[in-house]
Amino acid sequence: MNTFKQISVIGLGLLGASVSLSIRRAMSGTRVVGHSHRESTRRKAAEQGIVDSVAETVQTCVEEADLVVLASPIRTFEGYFRQMAPYLKEGAVVTDVGSTKRIVHQWASRLLPKRVKFVGSHPIAGSEKQGLDFARDDLLPGAKCIMTQTQTTDPAAVAAVRLFWERLGCTVEVMSPAAHDRILAMVSHLPHITAASLVNANRLEDLYLAGTGFIDTSRVASGPANIWTDILLTNKQGCLRGISKLVVELERFYDALERGDEEQLQKLLEAARKKRERLIEYKLEKKELF
Amino acid sequence: MNTFKQISVIGLGLLGASVSLSIRRAMSGTRVVGHSHRESTRRKAAEQGIVDSVAETVQTCVEEADLVVLASPIRTFEGYFRQMAPYLKEGAVVTDVGSTKRIVHQWASRLLPKRVKFVGSHPIAGSEKQGLDFARDDLLPGAKCIMTQTQTTDPAAVAAVRLFWERLGCTVEVMSPAAHDRILAMVSHLPHITAASLVNANRLEDLYLAGTGFIDTSRVASGPANIWTDILLTNKQGCLRGISKLVVELERFYDALERGDEEQLQKLLEAARKKRERLIEYKLEKKELF
Repeated sequence: MNTFKQISVIGLGLLGASVSLSIRRAMSGTRVVGHSHRESTRRKAAEQGIVDSVAETVQTCVEEADLVVLASPIRTFEGYFRQMAPYLKEGAVVTDVGSTKRIVHQWASRLLPKRVKFVGSHPIAGSEKQGLDFARDDLLPGAKCIMTQTQTTDPAAVAAVRLFWERLGCTVEVMSPAAHDRILAMVSHLPHITAASLVNANRLEDLYLAGTGFIDTSRVASGPANIWTDILLTNKQGCLRGISKLVVELERFYDALERGDEEQLQKLLEAARKKRERLIEYKLEKKELF
Repeated sequence: MNTFKQISVIGLGLLGASVSLSIRRAMSGTRVVGHSHRESTRRKAAEQGIVDSVAETVQTCVEEADLVVLASPIRTFEGYFRQMAPYLKEGAVVTDVGSTKRIVHQWASRLLPKRVKFVGSHPIAGSEKQGLDFARDDLLPGAKCIMTQTQTTDPAAVAAVRLFWERLGCTVEVMSPAAHDRILAMVSHLPHITAASLVNANRLEDLYLAGTGFIDTSRVASGPANIWTDILLTNKQGCLRGISKLVVELERFYDALERGDEEQLQKLLEAARKKRERLIEYKLEKKELF
């Protein structure tokens, strides 16, 4: 199971197309078949050599696949699992690149047949840009990829998919879908909500005076609204908890400011500065940041 | 008054040293004299050619100056105004690079003598880095510089200082100190509080799994705590109002999520995405972003 002769990618947006390009670059001997529900995307993928071949249907995309990578918006997964279920080979491995994991495991265990092994994946790579036109074969090297397993997940499938992501340059960590969703709510989904809220709190004419600080703080708010609606709705509890925690921290600043408590303000700012400094040191050391 | 023969810069941190370097590059014929209260900074500035000459005291720094640029932390301005007041030439112009403006105008009008003209300045350029070692002569080109005036500000001084910033590559806008502080609270000080709060809400071990989205969203939280304590305390009302506005926007997300209101979530995300898109278009058009 260590080598996949055919990998099929469903969904050829920024991430699906970047994964496809990366397989073509890093895994000679593996054939990449891609499918998108959009005719125009299928045509572009063929023209630009994103995949070895383009499949017109889900069936023809997956029926020869040793590994299927689902890279469409999360809430389309349920439908794709149903569509692919009858056609998957005995022993085929299915994974995904979705940003939330509990619901994906639930759908997979309900909808995929027993002869197929599902493992969750979430390569933490992306951009506020969207679509195949922004695909890059260097999006994955240096990225963390969180893989998720439950008590029923096949260990050999985990090992094979781990090897796959490592081949593409990712550092892999394996955890439960619940742990994934709890952590990602805080480090990814909450920052998105925060960036969008910060933009929404501002008037456009004031923003014309903003510097690079605001540009960076708000960057992720330029991400596609449909993808993020999916992510937030499929990690509702984590996001609600995240917002509450953030509001508590904002209130600490509010109270310190209102009292003119210089010492407390300095303490809050210094705590954040130091924690971020340690984060940056870690990321540089792990070569996840350059 | 259009040309300054000597410009004196007090405070040789990131911004003061960058202003000094920029004057040396862009304004031949103008002599730059610099002062820092730290002996080690004065020595470095001399060694690295940040200024034409280093002054050991505030008096010797300002007594020949046609323009004084105050570039130390805001809450040191009061003391510097007092110290320089007896030594400033008739008709000398004083400005600053502080991030809040109302309090600076109050101090200037109370402490500077009538023979001197004060105009506020806030070049919106900087970095989360601090200190002379990170100074760059290309920090200012493309940056907005907000100048502030009250009803008693001398128009000729405004014109001369505007020309100065334009010479260094800034785009200048002039407004009242109150308008400046209201707007900057929203586009700069609130984002700082938000970034710090977001870091504080997270556990370090979770942050190890963060991607570039979090890194960018939190970048400004690495800024120096003492400088930001000053800024927040001198724009208290604006910051309190900003936090309240942000919490209202976060609550909109909370409510929509709790109800599972997909349409409202999509609307909130799309509003932010579109507004930021217009901001980026504006910044590219104005060459304030590359």
